[in-house]
Amino acid sequence: MKYFGCILPFFLLLAIDSKPTAAVCGYESCPETKPNLVNIHLVPHSHDDVGWLKTVDQYYYGHKNDIQNAGVQYIIDTVVSELIKDPKRRFIQVETAFFAKWWQEQSEAVQQSVKKLVNEGRLEFAGGAWSMNDEAAVNYQSVIDQFTLGLKWLNETFGACARPRIGWQIDPFGHSREQASMFAQMGYDGEFFARMDHKDKSKRMDKFELEMIWNASESLDQMELFTGMLYNKYSHVPGFCFDSLCTDPPIIDDRSSENNVEVRVHDFIKYVQLLETHYRSNHIMVPMGDDFHYGNAQKNYKNMDKLIKYVNQLQFKYHVFYSTPSCYLNALHQTLATWPNKTQDFFPYASDSNSFWTGYYTSRPTQKRFERDGNHMLQTAKQLSVFADLKSEQQKKDLDYLRQIMGVMQHHDAITGTEKQAVSNDYDRLLYDGIIGGASNARDALRGLTNLPEGEFESCLQLNISECAFTQDSADNVVVTLFNPLAHTSSQYVRVPVKEENYQVTDEKGRVVASEVVPVAWQVLALEYRQNTTQHELVFKASVNKIASYFIKKVDKVESREIVLPKADKKPMTQLEKNLEVLKRFKKVHPMKNVETHADDDSETVVQTSQIKLTIDNNTGRLKTVEMNGVSETIDQNFAIYETYESGAYVFRQKEDVDLKFLEDKVEFTVYDGALVKEVHQQFSEWISQVIRIYEGVNRVEFEWLVGPIPTDEDTAREIVTVFDSEISSNGVFYTDSNGREMIKRVKDKREDFNPDLGRQPISGNYYPIVSRIALEDSNKRIALLNDRAQGGTSMQNGQLELMLHRRLIRDDGYGVGEALNEQKYEKPLIARGKVYLILNSVEESTKVERVAEKEIHLPFWKFFSSYSKVNRNASAKPLPDFDVLPQSVHLLTLEPFSEHEVLLRLENFLDHMVSFNIRSILDDLGGAEIRETTLDGNLPLSEMKRMKFQHDAAGSRPKTAEYFTSQHKPLVAHKSRADSEFSVSLKPMQIRTFIIRKE
Amino acid sequence: MKYFGCILPFFLLLAIDSKPTAAVCGYESCPETKPNLVNIHLVPHSHDDVGWLKTVDQYYYGHKNDIQNAGVQYIIDTVVSELIKDPKRRFIQVETAFFAKWWQEQSEAVQQSVKKLVNEGRLEFAGGAWSMNDEAAVNYQSVIDQFTLGLKWLNETFGACARPRIGWQIDPFGHSREQASMFAQMGYDGEFFARMDHKDKSKRMDKFELEMIWNASESLDQMELFTGMLYNKYSHVPGFCFDSLCTDPPIIDDRSSENNVEVRVHDFIKYVQLLETHYRSNHIMVPMGDDFHYGNAQKNYKNMDKLIKYVNQLQFKYHVFYSTPSCYLNALHQTLATWPNKTQDFFPYASDSNSFWTGYYTSRPTQKRFERDGNHMLQTAKQLSVFADLKSEQQKKDLDYLRQIMGVMQHHDAITGTEKQAVSNDYDRLLYDGIIGGASNARDALRGLTNLPEGEFESCLQLNISECAFTQDSADNVVVTLFNPLAHTSSQYVRVPVKEENYQVTDEKGRVVASEVVPVAWQVLALEYRQNTTQHELVFKASVNKIASYFIKKVDKVESREIVLPKADKKPMTQLEKNLEVLKRFKKVHPMKNVETHADDDSETVVQTSQIKLTIDNNTGRLKTVEMNGVSETIDQNFAIYETYESGAYVFRQKEDVDLKFLEDKVEFTVYDGALVKEVHQQFSEWISQVIRIYEGVNRVEFEWLVGPIPTDEDTAREIVTVFDSEISSNGVFYTDSNGREMIKRVKDKREDFNPDLGRQPISGNYYPIVSRIALEDSNKRIALLNDRAQGGTSMQNGQLELMLHRRLIRDDGYGVGEALNEQKYEKPLIARGKVYLILNSVEESTKVERVAEKEIHLPFWKFFSSYSKVNRNASAKPLPDFDVLPQSVHLLTLEPFSEHEVLLRLENFLDHMVSFNIRSILDDLGGAEIRETTLDGNLPLSEMKRMKFQHDAAGSRPKTAEYFTSQHKPLVAHKSRADSEFSVSLKPMQIRTFIIRKE
Repeated sequence: MKYFGCILPFFLLLAIDSKPTAAVCGYESCPETKPNLVNIHLVPHSHDDVGWLKTVDQYYYGHKNDIQNAGVQYIIDTVVSELIKDPKRRFIQVETAFFAKWWQEQSEAVQQSVKKLVNEGRLEFAGGAWSMNDEAAVNYQSVIDQFTLGLKWLNETFGACARPRIGWQIDPFGHSREQASMFAQMGYDGEFFARMDHKDKSKRMDKFELEMIWNASESLDQMELFTGMLYNKYSHVPGFCFDSLCTDPPIIDDRSSENNVEVRVHDFIKYVQLLETHYRSNHIMVPMGDDFHYGNAQKNYKNMDKLIKYVNQLQFKYHVFYSTPSCYLNALHQTLATWPNKTQDFFPYASDSNSFWTGYYTSRPTQKRFERDGNHMLQTAKQLSVFADLKSEQQKKDLDYLRQIMGVMQHHDAITGTEKQAVSNDYDRLLYDGIIGGASNARDALRGLTNLPEGEFESCLQLNISECAFTQDSADNVVVTLFNPLAHTSSQYVRVPVKEENYQVTDEKGRVVASEVVPVAWQVLALEYRQNTTQHELVFKASVNKIASYFIKKVDKVESREIVLPKADKKPMTQLEKNLEVLKRFKKVHPMKNVETHADDDSETVVQTSQIKLTIDNNTGRLKTVEMNGVSETIDQNFAIYETYESGAYVFRQKEDVDLKFLEDKVEFTVYDGALVKEVHQQFSEWISQVIRIYEGVNRVEFEWLVGPIPTDEDTAREIVTVFDSEISSNGVFYTDSNGREMIKRVKDKREDFNPDLGRQPISGNYYPIVSRIALEDSNKRIALLNDRAQGGTSMQNGQLELMLHRRLIRDDGYGVGEALNEQKYEKPLIARGKVYLILNSVEESTKVERVAEKEIHLPFWKFFSSYSKVNRNASAKPLPDFDVLPQSVHLLTLEPFSEHEVLLRLENFLDHMVSFNIRSILDDLGGAEIRETTLDGNLPLSEMKRMKFQHDAAGSRPKTAEYFTSQHKPLVAHKSRADSEFSVSLKPMQIRTFIIRKE
Repeated sequence: MKYFGCILPFFLLLAIDSKPTAAVCGYESCPETKPNLVNIHLVPHSHDDVGWLKTVDQYYYGHKNDIQNAGVQYIIDTVVSELIKDPKRRFIQVETAFFAKWWQEQSEAVQQSVKKLVNEGRLEFAGGAWSMNDEAAVNYQSVIDQFTLGLKWLNETFGACARPRIGWQIDPFGHSREQASMFAQMGYDGEFFARMDHKDKSKRMDKFELEMIWNASESLDQMELFTGMLYNKYSHVPGFCFDSLCTDPPIIDDRSSENNVEVRVHDFIKYVQLLETHYRSNHIMVPMGDDFHYGNAQKNYKNMDKLIKYVNQLQFKYHVFYSTPSCYLNALHQTLATWPNKTQDFFPYASDSNSFWTGYYTSRPTQKRFERDGNHMLQTAKQLSVFADLKSEQQKKDLDYLRQIMGVMQHHDAITGTEKQAVSNDYDRLLYDGIIGGASNARDALRGLTNLPEGEFESCLQLNISECAFTQDSADNVVVTLFNPLAHTSSQYVRVPVKEENYQVTDEKGRVVASEVVPVAWQVLALEYRQNTTQHELVFKASVNKIASYFIKKVDKVESREIVLPKADKKPMTQLEKNLEVLKRFKKVHPMKNVETHADDDSETVVQTSQIKLTIDNNTGRLKTVEMNGVSETIDQNFAIYETYESGAYVFRQKEDVDLKFLEDKVEFTVYDGALVKEVHQQFSEWISQVIRIYEGVNRVEFEWLVGPIPTDEDTAREIVTVFDSEISSNGVFYTDSNGREMIKRVKDKREDFNPDLGRQPISGNYYPIVSRIALEDSNKRIALLNDRAQGGTSMQNGQLELMLHRRLIRDDGYGVGEALNEQKYEKPLIARGKVYLILNSVEESTKVERVAEKEIHLPFWKFFSSYSKVNRNASAKPLPDFDVLPQSVHLLTLEPFSEHEVLLRLENFLDHMVSFNIRSILDDLGGAEIRETTLDGNLPLSEMKRMKFQHDAAGSRPKTAEYFTSQHKPLVAHKSRADSEFSVSLKPMQIRTFIIRKE
């Protein structure tokens, strides 16, 4: 053997490729297959959770191995060493979060060595996002962000050879259609996963339908994605786990009484033969790995080497070799085989007839909400960083850190709430740090963009409980600077915690803005851990294009201002008085002065704005009817409880024959009837309360719930739902969103492809993930519930919608987390607060209203607080790009710094009609010199996108050679010197287009 | 960086030394130390049992990891990879059994790479024998053999750089003086171990005496060995186990909330400071390893690298670096410090006041005996291979295999009996295979050396129960070929199982040899699993120089032959009749014809030969007096039982206040009074019987015991001892051998260096390992017991000697083996049979008689059986070397093929006077051309031996530079052309000299 023109001593050869090759990666680097044999693709991989039983760093470093024996640094260390030893070996790396952390610790020599491995296709990235995201509770915006982040890191570090070709969603607990659609939009050739309803799987196994073509969008064309379901979870061949974590026998091939070569080869082939009875082609993919495997890769590869050697040596029908999922997919593509069709999604996931994994749709509701806050800040910080052109190392680092932790939060044991409590605490810490960094960027940007060059621009992260140290502690005069992440000027009501009762609000031009002060619900004030003496909220309506400041000034008494007009108490309320007695324990008791109570002698209380009329049943204390958008409907809203026993973080498992238990006590309520806002404060039980809220001019009803501490005992866990009962004849049909984007039709007790086994879990088996919206309708009316975080939801009765809000459990459900989901905060069971929005509408008008509301709820104004004294009336605000030029249905999905001189712009048409517009002005506003269109993730020029097209079973004539999809439209690529017409953009319904703008 | 005159791409550098060095090994390759700092020698090592919970092969391959997570192949694989990465890293390899197995699987490239590591002192061999042998139950001959084997493999594979400099006996359960002596004789500079009586250790800790100079021989000079006791077993710093098997925190040095560099450095230094309070010098050795650690060495080294980096970076008093035990010892040697003295040994080992590890002296008595059979065959096969000059590959392989398995058997969880049952079974299998191979070599040799060119030369391995398929199945005429492994012509009685009663024995010259037939004890015949219908043994006396054949022919009746003369039964014995009733269950009942019973009316029965007179007390049925060697003594021999509960394979742990329980039933006995042999067959209980046997002309009494199946119940384990009670006033003093060579004086309840804590275990704490002999005496008389395998023994009463024969236990003692020692054979509790020999003598005459007996018992004639028809009267036997030229006190300790043209000859003077002789004739007889003297192990020319001399505390003037020992006598090196006088050899008392003879 010769190397580099000089002779190397033998000892060096140990760790050197025997055949150095030129950079040939991707499908060209795939191992040779043999057409006349059964080709067994052995796929070495490690499934490395970005947090679960241990924190991200604990997993990375292999810390706390008494909790779980897992250390990712060693996995990558040893895998790289082993790949170097033999060019035939392969490995797929999935989670870029871990890989990037590892990479920055390596010497340049090691980095060069790894680049070679990547350039030769020996180390392949699969998935490649920052984490392997969940598919139930995530919003598509955050999924796109975390793919953008991971793929960008790969691209910048390794170039094109590192670009993943397949999605590797092997562990998430159910699979969304939107995820598949995003893979398609990013140019992936297919995706593989390993969890599917057991009935679906067994039917598909029987029918050779474990692999299929998924039509992943109702709105978009070409959103076909090859989708493969693995056979044995994502694990190695049973009995052939050569990992340090396993105890399966090694291959013993020496003179030894333990020699087992023949029996091992026999057993391996037997397993492959089993797979042959369920998969169509003469290619069989066999993953070789499991959770945190390959921490000692030498052991894995040494034995796999032997397995390959002896299988190939001892028989003549099978050809086994190291491969990757993409090479397997490529082989399938080359066969020109046809595949069955799939259109809906893979929710809910049932691992057996008693285990529907629907509890995690709701688990850890405050963490799920905090993740949304993180996204909110991330979008805010990204846009502001672009506007202010932030470039310092610290600023870039802070933004990247927030991007990264948001990538982590999408992980299928993070946003899902299926991690251990200590890990959840660490996610909180990380996300808090990330948000602080993002807020710091935002402050830096706002100081340059506004006329508050020294403004504090404090963010208050606990406004949901009316807590804000800044507004409490600062002088009586506060500036609220509002940032609107949406494309279009938006009018929204703003609430600011204040101490006193008389304030004047003025806008940037000094104009007085209508405002009023409302008391904070006493249940909130009563929270023991609330570090705030602020007992009111100032409410005013603000209109913001991108940035606007409002000035709040305490006044003695402002005659002219709009204020909540208290009516005299008609009668003292016994229950309320009792509650007040309870409240005396707390030092911060709201005096409850400005209270209007309902009249006991009326049968109902009416609360209404110009748009909406609510009636409250005075006997029950609950909502009775809603009238809005010209539609009127009986809607009884109540809370109810599932008393369960075996539910866990993953599984919502009802007790046999135990049904939903509605709250039956009369609800005590109080109405605050302001000019801008009307609030009904309801007390459902000692630990469930709610504020129903309608704002003047706003087309939805807000239900702000407060649930907890949930009582449990050793036999009873409790899972709390809010239920909206209408008389709409929905006939078992309802609609749920897919990752907050397109809707999917659900039919109670039914699935698209199979008959589910709902015998033991008729309710849990009808639960679906609700990321943004659940709706039902008849031919005329429609009700939709929108939420502020992911939740589980269903429609179990005609006209009824249900969302699970909070859960406190007493048992672990046995899927590894090893803890009962029993969240504590300040040593008491966790109290959660959140909002559900109701929209009642005619069926024809509903789409636009709901989708606009979705965006506003997802990305409302971010409030920054500064002292009045920081205002510099002489400073002028910097002009910002004008996105109002975009059609109303176009959403500014992403605007972020991309590279040193590049900005990423992602636009989405969220309504059902085609729009065309010209983005020349935006390009100019952003200082862009040229623009190029890319795949959804921003990293691949759209012109270069070419992804595999697979043939449907039903298709007519078959192609003679493998086919590919490319972009349907001409990708936009233009320099600013080109004619305006070159900058014309069309967006089909629901289409997203992604652009990289290179600045001058 | 430049390499080999050419530029290497970066990716190659990953696995390459940054500073290739010339071959500098041994002490010259030691890391630099800093005189003004505390030098911390980090010693990476792995303790790899050659069988324990898993078999040797299971450990090697990492098979059955559910039993124990351990795979030696991966340890060596990954350690080598890691050593290659950084020249500062070190590792010590101990067990050559594993290393040699690994080596033969490696490619030449890997082998070259490892050679470089060895040549640079980065991979150092410590200990280096085939296994880390036990020190209690092993015979010195087998220890020397297994060191010869291991060091020879190392020398042949790597050359001088691989020669170990220190003994690494870290796990054996107590330490023998003979082991230290052997280390000294092999030129080792010191030894380290980790187990010592807890009281001894704590005293030494207080007095800075954990390190000492051991004067390891009473007979020999210069047998000083530096001996170091480790602090924390042989384990890593507590909390700093970076192995995959541990869960201690890694060093986390990156930006992470888990960063622990400062606290880890602090904790490490704190531990070192603790060690500083117990060790004398400014060098501290810290082992970093444990059982089967380094299976994923990357993890260990990565974290140790960081530890070293940060310890050295963050403080200025300590200097930490990778090192080895020999480098540590070298540093100590350079300090010129002085050390305390040690003369006796480290038995028994007590890990706490209730745990004396004295049970293992006896555990698995049949395995301990089988090991002796293995040695017997090994010495036989070696000598015969030399005589017949066997050279075929198969022959060499067979002999090596037997050498290797005998090396394995010396392991401290093999011969000790402290392994799991399944592992014990595997040792049996391996040893059986090894003996079969040895027997095959012996047959090949004997066919050439005798006049039976087609002789079967069958070996019978169950002669201890008179079972031999060959003598049972062959025709009535059998040839017994006897091989005498001793140097001198020996006369011994030979017993051959035969079916009939009338045989004639003739020698090679056709002379009739006196013989007689005796019945086999019925307790043996009654053994259910005995596959033999042979009910008699033919006894005759044979005289053999090296090889002699005797011819056995069935005759109708031979008037002239000596035969056991039956006397008429005087009276039927009720107990015996009862026993015979029991016997009717068995098909092979001995008819019990030729039986002489004692007279009930006599008070005693006398049994005597010309040399010995025994009296049996007719009332007790037990031995009463012995008269021999002109000395008469009352000796009551009985069996007794320790009823225990918490005893285990390791620990013999008596129940509180429960003493030895003697058998009290009257012993039924029968006397066989032959002309050549007299036997008293005694029945002590249903499961204990014995044959007391004296042969005409033989100077010792043989007690052949049969114990088992031992009954146990859930509360009671039983450990069986044989007790010899004399009236000799021994005053608590007795003598036990050290590994079958020199004797050590024991004083009941005392130790050399400390006051033992015997409060809870007064008996177990007085137990010592008896490998060959235990004795006591007064000023005139002495009794000695010699045994046929290692046992525990003591003298708890004046004049009393006790040997533990067999144990059946009900509990595990908690030291890892995880099983109660409850051996089963054929689904019944194991029955054991063996021999104890009594010698009563005057004190003056005892040494020679006992030592000669020791050799005869250890290496009696090996019997080979052939058919009469194979005799070729025309063939003549080949002349053999004549060792009778050696003085009577010189033992042919070893004669074996060494390399292709070399023979190893090892001679031992086993008596207490100096002898001189000339070995020219032996050299000639062996066809030797030249001879060279070596260290005890045969691998280092004695002229090159130079080992560290350490200074005693008490010594007067101190040397200015470090001193060394070299050979005291002029090493013999001569070519046959030299004058006879050059071949003169002197042997001091107990001296062993080792020679390599190069043949022509």
